Amino acid sequence: MRTVLFLLFILPTILRAQNSNLIPFVNPLIGTKNAGHTYPGATVPFGSVQLSPDTDTIPMLVNGQYQKDVYRYCAGYQYDDSSIVGFSHTHFSGTGHSDLGDILLMPNSGSIQWNPGTAGQTDKGYRSRFSHQNEQATAGLYRVFLDEPKVQVELTSTERVGIHHYQFQEGKDNHVLMDLTHGIYNYADKNVWCFIRMENDTLITGYRQTNGWARSRTVYFAISFSKPITEYGFKNVKPTAYNGFWRKFDVEHNFPEAAGEGLKAIFKFGSETDVQIKVALSSVDIDGALLNLKTECPHWNFNSYVEDAQEKWNEKLNIIQADFLSQDEKVTFYTSLYHTFLGPTLYMDVDHRYKGLDQRIHQANGFVNYTTFSLWDTYRAQHPFLNLIQPKVNADMIQSMLAHYDQSVHHMLPVWSHYANENWCMIGYHSVSVLADAMIKSNPGFDYSRALKAAVTTSNQRFYEGLGAYIDFQFVPENLSGNSVSKTLEYAYDDWCIAQMAKKLGQDSLHAIYQKRAAFYKNQFDSSIGFMRPRMSDGSFKKEFDVLSTHGQGFIEGNAWNYSLYVPQDPKSLMEFMGGEKRFIEHLDSLFTMSLPDKYFAETEDIMRDGIIGNYVHGNEPSHHVPYLYNYTSQAWKTQATTRMILPLQYKAKPDGLGGNDDCGQMSAWYIFTALGFYPVAPGSTDYALTSTSVKSATIHLSEGKQFNMVVKNQANNNVYIQSISLNGIPLLKPFITHEQIVSGGMLEVKMGPKPNKKLFH
Amino acid sequence: MRTVLFLLFILPTILRAQNSNLIPFVNPLIGTKNAGHTYPGATVPFGSVQLSPDTDTIPMLVNGQYQKDVYRYCAGYQYDDSSIVGFSHTHFSGTGHSDLGDILLMPNSGSIQWNPGTAGQTDKGYRSRFSHQNEQATAGLYRVFLDEPKVQVELTSTERVGIHHYQFQEGKDNHVLMDLTHGIYNYADKNVWCFIRMENDTLITGYRQTNGWARSRTVYFAISFSKPITEYGFKNVKPTAYNGFWRKFDVEHNFPEAAGEGLKAIFKFGSETDVQIKVALSSVDIDGALLNLKTECPHWNFNSYVEDAQEKWNEKLNIIQADFLSQDEKVTFYTSLYHTFLGPTLYMDVDHRYKGLDQRIHQANGFVNYTTFSLWDTYRAQHPFLNLIQPKVNADMIQSMLAHYDQSVHHMLPVWSHYANENWCMIGYHSVSVLADAMIKSNPGFDYSRALKAAVTTSNQRFYEGLGAYIDFQFVPENLSGNSVSKTLEYAYDDWCIAQMAKKLGQDSLHAIYQKRAAFYKNQFDSSIGFMRPRMSDGSFKKEFDVLSTHGQGFIEGNAWNYSLYVPQDPKSLMEFMGGEKRFIEHLDSLFTMSLPDKYFAETEDIMRDGIIGNYVHGNEPSHHVPYLYNYTSQAWKTQATTRMILPLQYKAKPDGLGGNDDCGQMSAWYIFTALGFYPVAPGSTDYALTSTSVKSATIHLSEGKQFNMVVKNQANNNVYIQSISLNGIPLLKPFITHEQIVSGGMLEVKMGPKPNKKLFH
Repeated sequence: MRTVLFLLFILPTILRAQNSNLIPFVNPLIGTKNAGHTYPGATVPFGSVQLSPDTDTIPMLVNGQYQKDVYRYCAGYQYDDSSIVGFSHTHFSGTGHSDLGDILLMPNSGSIQWNPGTAGQTDKGYRSRFSHQNEQATAGLYRVFLDEPKVQVELTSTERVGIHHYQFQEGKDNHVLMDLTHGIYNYADKNVWCFIRMENDTLITGYRQTNGWARSRTVYFAISFSKPITEYGFKNVKPTAYNGFWRKFDVEHNFPEAAGEGLKAIFKFGSETDVQIKVALSSVDIDGALLNLKTECPHWNFNSYVEDAQEKWNEKLNIIQADFLSQDEKVTFYTSLYHTFLGPTLYMDVDHRYKGLDQRIHQANGFVNYTTFSLWDTYRAQHPFLNLIQPKVNADMIQSMLAHYDQSVHHMLPVWSHYANENWCMIGYHSVSVLADAMIKSNPGFDYSRALKAAVTTSNQRFYEGLGAYIDFQFVPENLSGNSVSKTLEYAYDDWCIAQMAKKLGQDSLHAIYQKRAAFYKNQFDSSIGFMRPRMSDGSFKKEFDVLSTHGQGFIEGNAWNYSLYVPQDPKSLMEFMGGEKRFIEHLDSLFTMSLPDKYFAETEDIMRDGIIGNYVHGNEPSHHVPYLYNYTSQAWKTQATTRMILPLQYKAKPDGLGGNDDCGQMSAWYIFTALGFYPVAPGSTDYALTSTSVKSATIHLSEGKQFNMVVKNQANNNVYIQSISLNGIPLLKPFITHEQIVSGGMLEVKMGPKPNKKLFH
Repeated sequence: MRTVLFLLFILPTILRAQNSNLIPFVNPLIGTKNAGHTYPGATVPFGSVQLSPDTDTIPMLVNGQYQKDVYRYCAGYQYDDSSIVGFSHTHFSGTGHSDLGDILLMPNSGSIQWNPGTAGQTDKGYRSRFSHQNEQATAGLYRVFLDEPKVQVELTSTERVGIHHYQFQEGKDNHVLMDLTHGIYNYADKNVWCFIRMENDTLITGYRQTNGWARSRTVYFAISFSKPITEYGFKNVKPTAYNGFWRKFDVEHNFPEAAGEGLKAIFKFGSETDVQIKVALSSVDIDGALLNLKTECPHWNFNSYVEDAQEKWNEKLNIIQADFLSQDEKVTFYTSLYHTFLGPTLYMDVDHRYKGLDQRIHQANGFVNYTTFSLWDTYRAQHPFLNLIQPKVNADMIQSMLAHYDQSVHHMLPVWSHYANENWCMIGYHSVSVLADAMIKSNPGFDYSRALKAAVTTSNQRFYEGLGAYIDFQFVPENLSGNSVSKTLEYAYDDWCIAQMAKKLGQDSLHAIYQKRAAFYKNQFDSSIGFMRPRMSDGSFKKEFDVLSTHGQGFIEGNAWNYSLYVPQDPKSLMEFMGGEKRFIEHLDSLFTMSLPDKYFAETEDIMRDGIIGNYVHGNEPSHHVPYLYNYTSQAWKTQATTRMILPLQYKAKPDGLGGNDDCGQMSAWYIFTALGFYPVAPGSTDYALTSTSVKSATIHLSEGKQFNMVVKNQANNNVYIQSISLNGIPLLKPFITHEQIVSGGMLEVKMGPKPNKKLFH
């Protein structure tokens, strides 16, 4: 007995001793200025709730005009703003289109303000000025002092519950406003319906239903207050029809139920100066929200919730323990790591119920269900990264995709899906890449046959984005479906992924079919100009063609210079096509060094000017593999120089440190891989391309207690070239390392130097 | 073994032999012309689905103007109309305000019409002309031939599924339109959201969410087709936001999912001429609708569903087997009986799940859940009637009310509730009458203590309709709450009901409190004029006072002449108050014989001119007990003459046979009681007041196989006076009979004559 007790006592201590406190190296404000589109608020790894300040609420349609500025507020917050509208509970991390921003709360004192007001006149609304000096954003905790109502705000969260702590300075007319009309990417008519019930003086329940990017979405809530509500009121209540005919109740003051399209509510606390609020969400129903509340937040010890959240973060962050040349690099690294754990997000109640794509309630049996799949972005590095360091989580994400497939009336895996809705954003069917990558890397957590079947069915849905024509013509004709070249190239890569899955399962004839489709990229190449180029259904190439423009040339978020390199499944063949190694290297060299005329900057989507290096657009995704393509030539050292150049240019430890949207972790996952020195050029292959690591040393904690250790000699800012590299004492002869080599654990020793060792991989 | 088999074989035969086929005596078209507001379509007893033709869809608000005519279409159908818009699945029976009309289907041929068109130009829309010659409405089956598309339509239903049978004459471009924007009492913006999914070529699912009289209501559906849909299309689809930006799918043609505020859909069947459609509804979710569909409608034998529905009707109708002087009287009687079985309606899925008033999903454990409680009407005769002949059903309805109370954030029993919403229509808290009546009559099917607690809490909700003032002033001051006299009188009756419940449970002090409140009616009586009269909060009577007007005089749906008699709990005391028996009888005599000036007809709500006899308004409810008040005097024979006068004047076996709204069975229950010869003047008492029966003979089949038999001698149209009356051979000495006397079973022998036997009850 004594021994057992002793072990129980020391076990947590041992675990904690292994984990450093890495919270100080996470700065959630990175990416909140300009186009990074990250949010600074509180969440836990993969949490359902992202409780974060919103600094503006520009509605998308004002007097019938589409508001350009709404793009700035994809995450609700812009660092340059000087006022906060309030604190809402759901945010995407790094997207370029958006939604969410549910259930805004804002503390206030004195007279009631029902509208947010404008940034210029904060006193005319419920918003408040604030200063970054009085703001602190860390993993799991956000603090800010609101200048006007003089309220100290602290936010933390569990997986499904956002927790607010408001400390009022003045003991008079303190209240909290709830604005259910607030939202991100807020159409004038985004709200469909709202419902609020005052269950008692410390508990309210209800829902908000929206028609946003997710067409049919309802967020149910249960909100618990630490102090009794003394009075309450509503705005925009839709009275019952009968109430309007004969007589009226006063439905706006202390009437315990309200419904309507655009409800707002005030909860008064009189002279109470310390109020905590727990906001539990559910996508299923009010009962789900109540159960989430009860299960995850049984007490009112705010600091204890913060400790729990930060412990969860340290647990995740310590999966990679690394040292760097500078504090800034360490902050950039761990903030990137933080970003990779922000999504996809948990999407089920504590009892495993969730609303599926078919608008029906499902039970996630034997897996954890996730949502927010920005797959055109995340298949490249984010999912391969999770597959490496969180294989169980990645497998559950795949199970979530397969559930989506089962629920899809279109019989398709997700394209860009969130909260029981497919929004069809971007192109390709890159779910299959995520499936293939996990299968090829032998992630055991899902049914491979089921995955292959879903992939094959998805890839044959003729109605989808030129896919029928792609199958018929062996390329997508531009006159039949726009962005045709990007589609052909990405479909071909996806088909190669399906071929790998078929091969893995010994389905040879299926493998042959998809290997053939995987080569369709060749049909887009115009050898007369050395670029991929749109073709018409009569087989001819598009006549007028601008290889630098990203608009109307057959590409999406990229131009011919970048997209012509999009054959991750077969760079060697591409190189032959493009005229051999010399020509290929010239293309790459030019890409990174050419001077792009001004007019092309203006038209590039989703990124700031400094997201572009030469003509290489790091801020968008289609070229993320491109710096690694030198590894397929005799000049692998150029990959090393290029990635070491990109790292500090595109990732900085400051609010405007991201050159483009973080895109649900993709940009950050690229950073982590590249900083560690290896990258999955073609997810679905077991190979990672090697590059020059920027760490001084690192330990990656893998499954089953295995460790992959990295020791780097002569690490320095100028020492960007690998002089020698060995795994477990054996030199690596090619600029690649396999998944198996990493996950088996071991010791990678790298020696760096200021000049390339051009003989290294020969 | 042989014996058992034999018994199994003959048992159904025996049961059927006992039941006559009473279907021919039910004419659902009665009440469909003018103000009866009944519907002619197909349903089963207490069924959730009421599948019925709608002849117009006048929206309630047109260009900001309230449309008077919308009142005509409370049940969707008016007999005088010559065209049918389509067939929808939910209808109230006999209400004066309305809602529902969900999921309209309409068969058509040739070119697609998306809009209903107008009655004057049916060819400009999907509606069709029809003729009553080609229309047949019976219990459980509705048939009509649509002239324009030349389609024979047959409708039947189970509890939760409406079944359509369409026979097209022409084998060309046959299709069915579904219009989810159709509804009853249709506000311009009544639709909140719709969702449709084409699960496969014979199954669709979805929901329609409305903000109607029920403020927040969603009807989920699962619709199964007997023939494959060859093509389909939608109107008013809200595209996903992204779809609008970059590219478009064709979301209106053969795209298997649609959402939007006002969806319409077309399902094509090409040359197929015979199509059956099963429409299952649920208030819970799509899974509920699917389960209801599968459970209740496993096959495609339309006639078998009709037989099942009619067997259910015969089962109910045979509870009272009666003979009459004429076929018309028999039809009136059995159609009235049919109407009493139309509501409250079943409100739960086959798995007992339902959406509660708190918008959460509940399980009806140990009872059947019902909705649509038009209690200001139905507490008078409909619930007492069900309590007599369907005590288990009535007890389940009470359990449903108690569940409503448990889910009510206002902590109140239902006032007028339907489909998870309280619409607060009319006045009083008459749920307590239903509870008290069932308790006093020893209906064992619910928890009496729980019922009393709910009643007491309900009766003390000060925010409700002058109730706080009623408690403080011992009457409702007109300057504080309108219709004040009606409120005081009805609250006082309700309080008497609570007193009876308290007494039954031996709670003497509670009994005393409510007996005191039960006498508050006295505070409204102005002895200077002999009428109940509004008072102000200073105690004074309202100065200008019109005893004939029903508007602005302190009454609702009644005037001082009628409402002054509203003391059902204590007619004897009322008589004393009014100046003694002579004066009381004069008041009654005048009421039935006076000539009401024209201007008062125009203002009387909800009834046709012939719903008024003298100044007695039978078409509205407040005086339903009044003809029986003679029984409390020495001139009980006047009750007999009066009710026999009312029966044929107010109830006729033709479409315009009802003088006012049937009000969810109340008018019909009055008829049944009165035709049988007894009536519950004060539900909550065990007494029924006797009158002159109009049957020749009758058997009421009661619980546990007991029978109450009635044999009438000398029955004739002119023989309206009881000459003698005896129960089990013993003369009845007072013009009352108790519940116990009836439910014990026995033989009531009545002898009739053309002149009153004035000594009968002395």
